[in-house]
Amino acid sequence: MIEDKNPKRTPLSELGEFKLIEHLTNHFKISHKSTVKGIGDDAAVLNYAKKQVVLSTDLLVEGVHFDLSYVPLKHLGYKAVMVNLSDVYAMNAMATQITVSIAVSNRFPLEALEELYAGISTAADLYNVDVIGGDTTSSTSGLIISITALGEVDEDDEVLRSGAKPNDLVVVSGDIGGAYMGLQILEREKEVFKVNPNNQPDLSMYTYIVERQLKPEARKDIVELLKKLEVKPTSMIDISDGLSSEVMHLCKQSNVGVDIYENKIPLDPQVISTCEEFNIDSTTVALNGGEDYELLMTISQEDYDKIKGNPNLTVIGYVTESERGMHLVTRAEEKIPIIAKGWNALKDLP
Amino acid sequence: MIEDKNPKRTPLSELGEFKLIEHLTNHFKISHKSTVKGIGDDAAVLNYAKKQVVLSTDLLVEGVHFDLSYVPLKHLGYKAVMVNLSDVYAMNAMATQITVSIAVSNRFPLEALEELYAGISTAADLYNVDVIGGDTTSSTSGLIISITALGEVDEDDEVLRSGAKPNDLVVVSGDIGGAYMGLQILEREKEVFKVNPNNQPDLSMYTYIVERQLKPEARKDIVELLKKLEVKPTSMIDISDGLSSEVMHLCKQSNVGVDIYENKIPLDPQVISTCEEFNIDSTTVALNGGEDYELLMTISQEDYDKIKGNPNLTVIGYVTESERGMHLVTRAEEKIPIIAKGWNALKDLP
Repeated sequence: MIEDKNPKRTPLSELGEFKLIEHLTNHFKISHKSTVKGIGDDAAVLNYAKKQVVLSTDLLVEGVHFDLSYVPLKHLGYKAVMVNLSDVYAMNAMATQITVSIAVSNRFPLEALEELYAGISTAADLYNVDVIGGDTTSSTSGLIISITALGEVDEDDEVLRSGAKPNDLVVVSGDIGGAYMGLQILEREKEVFKVNPNNQPDLSMYTYIVERQLKPEARKDIVELLKKLEVKPTSMIDISDGLSSEVMHLCKQSNVGVDIYENKIPLDPQVISTCEEFNIDSTTVALNGGEDYELLMTISQEDYDKIKGNPNLTVIGYVTESERGMHLVTRAEEKIPIIAKGWNALKDLP
Repeated sequence: MIEDKNPKRTPLSELGEFKLIEHLTNHFKISHKSTVKGIGDDAAVLNYAKKQVVLSTDLLVEGVHFDLSYVPLKHLGYKAVMVNLSDVYAMNAMATQITVSIAVSNRFPLEALEELYAGISTAADLYNVDVIGGDTTSSTSGLIISITALGEVDEDDEVLRSGAKPNDLVVVSGDIGGAYMGLQILEREKEVFKVNPNNQPDLSMYTYIVERQLKPEARKDIVELLKKLEVKPTSMIDISDGLSSEVMHLCKQSNVGVDIYENKIPLDPQVISTCEEFNIDSTTVALNGGEDYELLMTISQEDYDKIKGNPNLTVIGYVTESERGMHLVTRAEEKIPIIAKGWNALKDLP
């Protein structure tokens, strides 16, 4: 699989904590007016003037959330940022700052952390967020990444999970299930590699889904698109754990029911063909596979004309009264209850 | 040492991630106007109106930052919050919100996490901060705690590390070296316990220093006191890594030198007697032992009369021109250069 052929290995103990932080963070530039002071004091200083601030935080643990045998560190850094920005965009806000904390064991040389930070830096640049702080320390075993993202939004534009109303349309951005099938491919190739380390995997048939897994993109563009279309969703959430789990969150917090139409769920052709290859039902993958980082939202029927035909947005169902419950309407027009089987980091505790 | 005699052990896998978060966080109340929405959406929503926001984050790793064989989980939760609030107070700001993320392995039952959160909750109540979010996930080995603290401050009141000027007085709150000596006591008793588990340690002679280690208090009161005395420090930092390391940070970022007087460094009698018992130099402990979470600041000479005689504040030296360097003036009136030997989580990477 992906191998680090870089022969240079600088032990972290050579630098010490302060020099390491300085080395990894000295190239981060500040570009937001709201960032008064970034890295270098006891705390960062921010000033959002009259905007609302949104804040989200995630903890990624090696062996639980990622497997370094097939995830390049640069991709991991990029993805760790995306996971957090996605939550900010799900508030209909623009991400402005992140903090990055890492704990590492001494099997990581400085060069590995540079790779990780290169990914973080690329993500911060592309998505225009300032890196304003963090913590760097040692761990007794693997790598742990903790990112906190901040964003700003006008009070009137903020979208919570709790605003869905009966008759609203359920809309999803992009397509889903890709990240999960990409993971299946990577896991399969890892097994092949274990048996024959000289075997170079041919991933060319799976580029889209592997990229969905390794280098997901948070949907900043969708927040911008909605603004341009003058659509303010009534509720919104990002799809990190799987469609069914996220639908249930929206319904629970909005106190509504939902009908989702199986034949409307947007799937990439590569997801469909790979599901066939693995003999897995693609709807199950869409409902329960996570990590797509698309946005799931509800919009008022009045806004339908504004989003109709937009290739980035797909109507997959509608909101019902709470008593009607949450259902998937299958291709055979059967109604089956939606249950959460999403990815759960605590289910398979080591 | 401290033993958990609670027989109830509910495996975390019984609850799943969402129920666990709900269970641990449902009693957190919101008390700040700036907290618009706490736990329960993709992100928390905050509104600081015209205030500046300060933000600090720390990662605590089992086996690196704490040893559960003598740190009760409740104390650990309390201390984890203190570590972060201390950074906020060091900006002369008032702490308003925290997020708490934890990763745990399955050797921790629910009841253990409840203890941890009880400590977090106690700290949040006492220091009046809202718990507004976090992440809960599994780890492959030990316990990891990541806390981010936010605070607010009027733009004019903010104190950075970089404002010290020659002739300013160097002032420290409380007394220092206690947390380090408390750790020595706990480490010694751990060894005794290993040899004879029935031996109950008598810690009554060491209550103050053991409490400094296990249950430190962030100096919110000092920020309030300074406001009352109408003293705005020219620079400030919290003492987490040891006096010498923090003095060096202030000097480096303010581009000044310093003379610190050994005989002025405030030490508790218990620190002095325990240093004698361990045959360690108490000045070395004050300079290099960390985790006291006192505030180190510089103030203008004009403000001297306002702080003179205050039992919470001790003048330990004065700021000099950068070229003069950083020195400790010993009791024998020798001038020796100050070097950083503070606690460094990366120095002894496992």
